[in-house]
Amino acid sequence: MITSPSNAKVKFVRRLQTDRRFRYREQQYVVEGTRWLTELVKMARPPELLCYTEQWLGTAVHAQILQQLSTLAQSAPLLVSESVMQAMSDTSTPAGILAVLSMQPRPLPQNPTLLLVLDAINTPGNLGTMLRTAGAAGVDGVLLGPDCVDLYNPKVVRGSMGAHLRLPVHSQSWAEIANTVQTMQVWLATIDAETAYTAVNWTRPSVLIIGSEAAGAGHDARQLTHHHLTIPMPAATESLNAAVATGIILFEAARQRLINESA
Amino acid sequence: MITSPSNAKVKFVRRLQTDRRFRYREQQYVVEGTRWLTELVKMARPPELLCYTEQWLGTAVHAQILQQLSTLAQSAPLLVSESVMQAMSDTSTPAGILAVLSMQPRPLPQNPTLLLVLDAINTPGNLGTMLRTAGAAGVDGVLLGPDCVDLYNPKVVRGSMGAHLRLPVHSQSWAEIANTVQTMQVWLATIDAETAYTAVNWTRPSVLIIGSEAAGAGHDARQLTHHHLTIPMPAATESLNAAVATGIILFEAARQRLINESA
Repeated sequence: MITSPSNAKVKFVRRLQTDRRFRYREQQYVVEGTRWLTELVKMARPPELLCYTEQWLGTAVHAQILQQLSTLAQSAPLLVSESVMQAMSDTSTPAGILAVLSMQPRPLPQNPTLLLVLDAINTPGNLGTMLRTAGAAGVDGVLLGPDCVDLYNPKVVRGSMGAHLRLPVHSQSWAEIANTVQTMQVWLATIDAETAYTAVNWTRPSVLIIGSEAAGAGHDARQLTHHHLTIPMPAATESLNAAVATGIILFEAARQRLINESA
Repeated sequence: MITSPSNAKVKFVRRLQTDRRFRYREQQYVVEGTRWLTELVKMARPPELLCYTEQWLGTAVHAQILQQLSTLAQSAPLLVSESVMQAMSDTSTPAGILAVLSMQPRPLPQNPTLLLVLDAINTPGNLGTMLRTAGAAGVDGVLLGPDCVDLYNPKVVRGSMGAHLRLPVHSQSWAEIANTVQTMQVWLATIDAETAYTAVNWTRPSVLIIGSEAAGAGHDARQLTHHHLTIPMPAATESLNAAVATGIILFEAARQRLINESA
């Protein structure tokens, strides 16, 4: 059992958690918790490194997950002490299991029909929730503009509940984003547009741009935009959390696309 | 200027932030940040106590807010040092302005037509976002079951963006909730119901129950339920954050109710 926080692997994981540049240099990131690890089993995705505590291993379900992950993993899982896990974890109450994954974003499909573009989303929890929501709504991919918080920030990873594996998610320059979306209808969500999100035809190849809650969309995002849409609210003085607004719009798109498919 | 963290008022605010029982004994809670304070001005709601830092006061907009709040307040605003504000604040980067408010929940309307009932929502950020979303969707009130996190928890207050003032929000026993909703259609959101949330007639007096993401709805919530509904997802293995799911369903209700009103 590893009990020393100065063990080289422990220090490596800590640095991946806290140092963005190190993550990109190593092309690796950390995922934590039983839910994420179950996702690795489902996707047959081999972790680079796997650490667990005795306490986590204490249930039959967890033991089975560990066994399945061990057959995938490049190296044997490491048993670590509670305090070492605490040192490696991004949370104050670690689940007791974490894995290091290599960054291998899924490629975008050739002809995407629904993309989410995010501009300057700075709150890691919000970004994570948006990725999870986008995955559930069946988007073909998510493009992050250069001012978003890092996709592999531990809080983004935690909130995404595995969307990093299941969904094509790419950090791109605005020039790359413009190139990707060039044949699609580009909609920007704002608080005061004439068109309601329910009046948009989401069965056409469409892009939804969501800007930051505080500042709205920036110049580059507005340059790409063909149309504005809004979520009509009974109480005009109110506002919505950006992740909730994203969910409301994307699930209207999902509803229309599901009807269209079954028609 | 108050510079000592052992000042009685500073200690009082800290205890309101951290001690739930103390909040209820005093019937007071703390709100922080310019956005919340702007809300107090809009609602002409007098704070019991108002604390600000010199740095916060450094803009004309903030000075005007402080002046407007001062005319409402029971006592003169207190200038405090940065470190005292840090001690009183629930966040690691305080905005530099906070107020103590008395708990004065708005009464429910006589004949509510849309209520949100929350069961065992334990994540303060999620609960705050749900309150904000419910306010924006125009619900008549939110009822919190006994297993929810405290409505006046600082993180709930922060996420609600003022919904505590604008919306009737009440913590109730299940017997009280049952009594309140007795003439209404009660819908429980689940992951596998036959009825889609878009197939519900939300123009009838309706109640939406949302349970905890981890455990779903408990026995008492299920007892109240007439029907189950679900959010159909293109990818069946996915799931949604509880606050996002709440937003998706409530804004379908809002959409139907807005059409109905204008018809």
